[in-house]
Amino acid sequence: MRALLLVAHGSRREASNEEVRTITRLLRSRAEPEFALVHCAFLELADPLIPEGLEQCRQAGAAEVVVLPYFLSAGRHVTEDIPGIVSKYREIHPELVIRLAPHLGTATGLPDALFDLAKI
Amino acid sequence: MRALLLVAHGSRREASNEEVRTITRLLRSRAEPEFALVHCAFLELADPLIPEGLEQCRQAGAAEVVVLPYFLSAGRHVTEDIPGIVSKYREIHPELVIRLAPHLGTATGLPDALFDLAKI
Repeated sequence: MRALLLVAHGSRREASNEEVRTITRLLRSRAEPEFALVHCAFLELADPLIPEGLEQCRQAGAAEVVVLPYFLSAGRHVTEDIPGIVSKYREIHPELVIRLAPHLGTATGLPDALFDLAKI
Repeated sequence: MRALLLVAHGSRREASNEEVRTITRLLRSRAEPEFALVHCAFLELADPLIPEGLEQCRQAGAAEVVVLPYFLSAGRHVTEDIPGIVSKYREIHPELVIRLAPHLGTATGLPDALFDLAKI
């Protein structure tokens, strides 16, 4: 069973974390049935953190988790922090296949999404 | 003539600013001919800043500029800083119609864009 974990930065402003949970619900509707589970997790400042999110997927029976960074640019969080946290979790649970997807900023659908917003 | 100004945060990491310029080029291809001009500007840390970006559009002959925040959450930058900078510019050039589009995090196309990335 495959799971999809959307990983956002996390904010002290709870409304921002709620925006991530909302997009996760929308993504869940879009990603089923290819992904039986779609959850979100945060790098810091909000729950669940990434290891907890991975653990939720594993305990729910996922054999594979795709980690998708909800970030616009490939800064340190995307290039170092998230891969580092994933690597540490892999050491504890090597049986779980974890794959890192490209970050949102590289999505080919972004120009379309932006153009739709501009048509106000 | 209408212009579209994609406004990102700006980063000390020049590669992140380049990512914004790349998405601006892709957006330009998508948004022509509805928008004769498509530029980017930054809230801080990179050039051009928002007033300079608005000025570029105005001097190129734009009668209207749509300002589109390239932000995932509606934090202070989206709700206060960008509208505040736009308001100040409006006072100087009231003849230019400036409209604020919703921020990227609200785009209905985001779930599709994310799902495409997850299919690795």
